[in-house]
Amino acid sequence: MRKLIIEARVNEFMMRGEGNPNVPYTPAEIAADALACREAGAAILHFHARQPDGKPDHAAETYAETVRLVRGSSDILVHPTLGYATLDDTAERRLDHILRMADDPAAAPHFAPMDMGSVNVDRYNAQARRFDTTNLIYKNSTETLTYFADRIRGAGMKPYLVSWNIGFTRYMGAFLDMGLLDEPAFLCFCLTDNTFLGGHPGTLKGLQAHLDFLPPGRNVEWTVVNFGGNLFSLAGAIIAQGGHISIGLGDYTYSELGQPSNADLVRRIAQMARELGREVATPEEARAILGMEATSKSKAGAKA
Amino acid sequence: MRKLIIEARVNEFMMRGEGNPNVPYTPAEIAADALACREAGAAILHFHARQPDGKPDHAAETYAETVRLVRGSSDILVHPTLGYATLDDTAERRLDHILRMADDPAAAPHFAPMDMGSVNVDRYNAQARRFDTTNLIYKNSTETLTYFADRIRGAGMKPYLVSWNIGFTRYMGAFLDMGLLDEPAFLCFCLTDNTFLGGHPGTLKGLQAHLDFLPPGRNVEWTVVNFGGNLFSLAGAIIAQGGHISIGLGDYTYSELGQPSNADLVRRIAQMARELGREVATPEEARAILGMEATSKSKAGAKA
Repeated sequence: MRKLIIEARVNEFMMRGEGNPNVPYTPAEIAADALACREAGAAILHFHARQPDGKPDHAAETYAETVRLVRGSSDILVHPTLGYATLDDTAERRLDHILRMADDPAAAPHFAPMDMGSVNVDRYNAQARRFDTTNLIYKNSTETLTYFADRIRGAGMKPYLVSWNIGFTRYMGAFLDMGLLDEPAFLCFCLTDNTFLGGHPGTLKGLQAHLDFLPPGRNVEWTVVNFGGNLFSLAGAIIAQGGHISIGLGDYTYSELGQPSNADLVRRIAQMARELGREVATPEEARAILGMEATSKSKAGAKA
Repeated sequence: MRKLIIEARVNEFMMRGEGNPNVPYTPAEIAADALACREAGAAILHFHARQPDGKPDHAAETYAETVRLVRGSSDILVHPTLGYATLDDTAERRLDHILRMADDPAAAPHFAPMDMGSVNVDRYNAQARRFDTTNLIYKNSTETLTYFADRIRGAGMKPYLVSWNIGFTRYMGAFLDMGLLDEPAFLCFCLTDNTFLGGHPGTLKGLQAHLDFLPPGRNVEWTVVNFGGNLFSLAGAIIAQGGHISIGLGDYTYSELGQPSNADLVRRIAQMARELGREVATPEEARAILGMEATSKSKAGAKA
């Protein structure tokens, strides 16, 4: 079985006041966390740029500064977000900061995300039986996704595909058939617990309902997020089935473990993998598993 | 087991030139087809108003005229569409023609549809490996769905809930928990074959992945559509598991059966049900199964 790729999802929109003060905000905090996660076994860092008070920071320069600091201190692969705040923006503007970073070798990300469809993303509070917002639709049209696929490939990055439901996975299959995506595809199943209702629940059944619809005959490396819930209950099944793990305080505070850091979560996953006889991939090994060497080389060759 | 409710989905956007000349267009054609389907065993008619040349007709009066003719000639329950052409319209305008019809006893529909989430609806041509359109998102925000639930209930109609994926079914659960929908809920699993990629495929696995996520402890009557594919391969499993059937030329031409009419398809389903020992519901029995008597009475009482 291939080595396990662990992605640290360090902050998303999580605020320290929600239960865990270890959420990194500033570029320096994110870079320090990235290094600690790398030492604990993570091969990929996923982050959202944040202001010092925790609010989202949409400035391209904050993204670039963060990546420069991260890449300056470790070899962890970098996966920035398109930004949740860009729900209604054009495809061009949603990807702009990533393409600008890709032009600067010191700030170049390795991945850019593509959620393969549209989905309602109002947060539902099941206890209070109400939605916190009522008008948020995460819109990713076919045209937008076609643009993303083209530009992400053109900039020498790997698309980080996200599936919220079976329809998203079918979309990925069509994009592979159309030649807009390369194999191996890297696909993240975004399970959603206690927050968004648009994903499958963070249960074994929710995961299996995704796995049952992977396109036959396609080379897909898959990882799993549990947004809003504890991923450890699924981690054993994921590791044993050959999947990868995407975990961090951005998704869930993990208060039941005290106040763990992102590196603590990564360390526990790495330990669990070793107990199951599966080795943990370095960033270099992750690149090989995901077919990123060839892409980079051919791109470099094409440019030369 | 409860009796089987058969819904005839007579036309949608299907053109006669796509392989079956029996697709009804005009109000008179739809009414004649509704009567034939009723005699063959259908309890519900789902239709889109169409112009004489088959183009969609968005005029409220065409909808009302169709319902008047249908109700004048049989007791079949009526389920008009909100209209595919209203993808980008306001919630108010999408429901307007239905609420106007509900004010006229001769034209009042029994159901109004609510698709419980948002989904990309560009048609994909798998043979040609291309999308026919690239910018169609069927947007149903939480706010829109809240408005629909309120107005449909207020007008004494039954919401016809549609689930394209597991997230949609979770949304239904939340709306039941919030008291915005009444039990029994009537939920249609919209499988999609050869057209849209947003639904589950029209296979037993695609159906089962829906059924596995029905909200526990909730009273839900479910039916199944296979948009773009032949539903007969699933019909036995649906009937045996207590589900209902929604079938018609609007979804698929059924050319492999020659050029069947909508009534022919309904008759085959009714025959299959009898072979499996399940009786077919009359419109009056369907109303009872779906809890529509009580709703009508309480609404009438509330108005008095």
